[in-house]
Amino acid sequence: MAAIGAMPEINGIRQKGRRSFVTLILTILTSSQSILIVWSKRAGKYEYSVTTANFLVEALKCALSLAALIRIWRKDGVTDDNRLSTTWDEVKVYPIPAALYLVKNLLQYYIFAYVDAPGYQILKNLNIISTGILYQIILKRKLTEIQWAAFILLCAGCTTAQLNPSSDHVLQAPLQGWVMAIVMALLSGFAGVYTEAIIKKRPSRNINVQNFWLYVFGMIFNAFAIMTQDFDTVMNDGFFHGYSLITVLMILNHALSGIAVSMVMKYADNIVKVYSTSVAMLLTAVVSVFLFGFHLSLAFFLGSTVVSVAIYLHSTGKARR
Amino acid sequence: MAAIGAMPEINGIRQKGRRSFVTLILTILTSSQSILIVWSKRAGKYEYSVTTANFLVEALKCALSLAALIRIWRKDGVTDDNRLSTTWDEVKVYPIPAALYLVKNLLQYYIFAYVDAPGYQILKNLNIISTGILYQIILKRKLTEIQWAAFILLCAGCTTAQLNPSSDHVLQAPLQGWVMAIVMALLSGFAGVYTEAIIKKRPSRNINVQNFWLYVFGMIFNAFAIMTQDFDTVMNDGFFHGYSLITVLMILNHALSGIAVSMVMKYADNIVKVYSTSVAMLLTAVVSVFLFGFHLSLAFFLGSTVVSVAIYLHSTGKARR
Repeated sequence: MAAIGAMPEINGIRQKGRRSFVTLILTILTSSQSILIVWSKRAGKYEYSVTTANFLVEALKCALSLAALIRIWRKDGVTDDNRLSTTWDEVKVYPIPAALYLVKNLLQYYIFAYVDAPGYQILKNLNIISTGILYQIILKRKLTEIQWAAFILLCAGCTTAQLNPSSDHVLQAPLQGWVMAIVMALLSGFAGVYTEAIIKKRPSRNINVQNFWLYVFGMIFNAFAIMTQDFDTVMNDGFFHGYSLITVLMILNHALSGIAVSMVMKYADNIVKVYSTSVAMLLTAVVSVFLFGFHLSLAFFLGSTVVSVAIYLHSTGKARR
Repeated sequence: MAAIGAMPEINGIRQKGRRSFVTLILTILTSSQSILIVWSKRAGKYEYSVTTANFLVEALKCALSLAALIRIWRKDGVTDDNRLSTTWDEVKVYPIPAALYLVKNLLQYYIFAYVDAPGYQILKNLNIISTGILYQIILKRKLTEIQWAAFILLCAGCTTAQLNPSSDHVLQAPLQGWVMAIVMALLSGFAGVYTEAIIKKRPSRNINVQNFWLYVFGMIFNAFAIMTQDFDTVMNDGFFHGYSLITVLMILNHALSGIAVSMVMKYADNIVKVYSTSVAMLLTAVVSVFLFGFHLSLAFFLGSTVVSVAIYLHSTGKARR
């Protein structure tokens, strides 16, 4: 943040505007993502193989980053900051987040032996706490005490908003389920914070170059996942078997929100990302009332209140730093 | 608070100690109160008339205040601050809280036409907000922004902790139910804040004298309630009809916690009282696990977390004032 602090004031405002913009975009994309998931579930079961869709998401992000870069090259010419060629020293850490996500996604298959799906949704909120802890440890940036209080509230508020009559089952989940949930939360928190560390390490490097290399490794790891998990299905039924309009929209959405996440990491941080996705979760519920006739529970109102207060406290807590 | 602020430091510490002590006592008494209520419900229905019990509570508080005064007179002699005789100017406002509670208790009978009992438990948490608003308006003491955030969290957290599968019914309650709940919250908030104003108006006046006069009016108003509501029952079955050991314990407990509330008003304030009774509610639930084999829900854990953070924020919010 030192480099940003040294910028002239006008750049500070532009920086802040860009930060708010990417955060807003991420929030909108994340909530439309959840709405697409609900829509696709209502339209029937997942017919396509998830691994091929994930691969396409990475490939699309790669292509979009490259397209953005070509525009920049035409406008500004190729510079040290925006050239695609890289060094081993820069690129060697890029596979780590992709590898962490892969391990996390593999664990996801096993956790359902111990925890049911609504319980898993509840346990996923542990991500919030793990991100906060790892953000502080790895990026060595301190949250104030008020901001920590806000973060705990964010976790409690999100969980409250998602409560349903069967949520209590999660308390009876065996120890293995809890341990796996905590490990998964740590993996995903670590991947997020590590991505931020990579992107922020070279502040002047163009984000599209950084994304390009991140997504190249994403493609490689997802190709590996196709081969180990869905090789037969892809060989017998074809790569695009079971794809529908919703599938295409979901891939498009995932790709765009993936890029938005990177932008938030570059111009804001993991903490902002967590707030953004939490607000998206609440927004999704409200939109679903109109789209799918869902009804909002008292727990949702209470959870939303707590999340709102958390957002307020996070921002005042920052001002006092 | 100006008078207290001017005291020497040693008195400040004594004041703080006394404040913590009365708050602790109030918390313990309030939670044992709820436990007695659960116990009495398990033992069977209320057989006694509630109005006679309320009258006895006031009478007992009056007697205890007088006993405390007699001890003080023996020790310190009768002074201007501890003499029982009073002026019209001092005593004229004392009936107001008792009258407000009477109106609130009468409304309580009518609200059940619109809201079921668990819904009423949920709506009672509006008291927290109304107390905060009236505290600020009537006592003209400002809560900081952080303390307001904490107070909203306290309300949301307490409600969350009390959530049960039927809580959502309250959202379908008719407008009349909500209006009555809000009026009741305002009445009880006003009664509490007004009592604090009365007690604090004469800081040097002995609390036992102030209590004595408050409870005298409490007795008068409750005698009125017996005559209008339970006159026939008392005449036919006797004043003590249906009393059991639990009834006696409940009366004793109500009397002691009533005195503790007054002490908290004198040495702390309504805000501390609200926190104290909220913690008592959580404590009751935990104790009930051991006593009655209740189980704690996920909502209870989430609500308790939010309440804990609220308490933390209230105290840090104060330090920064």
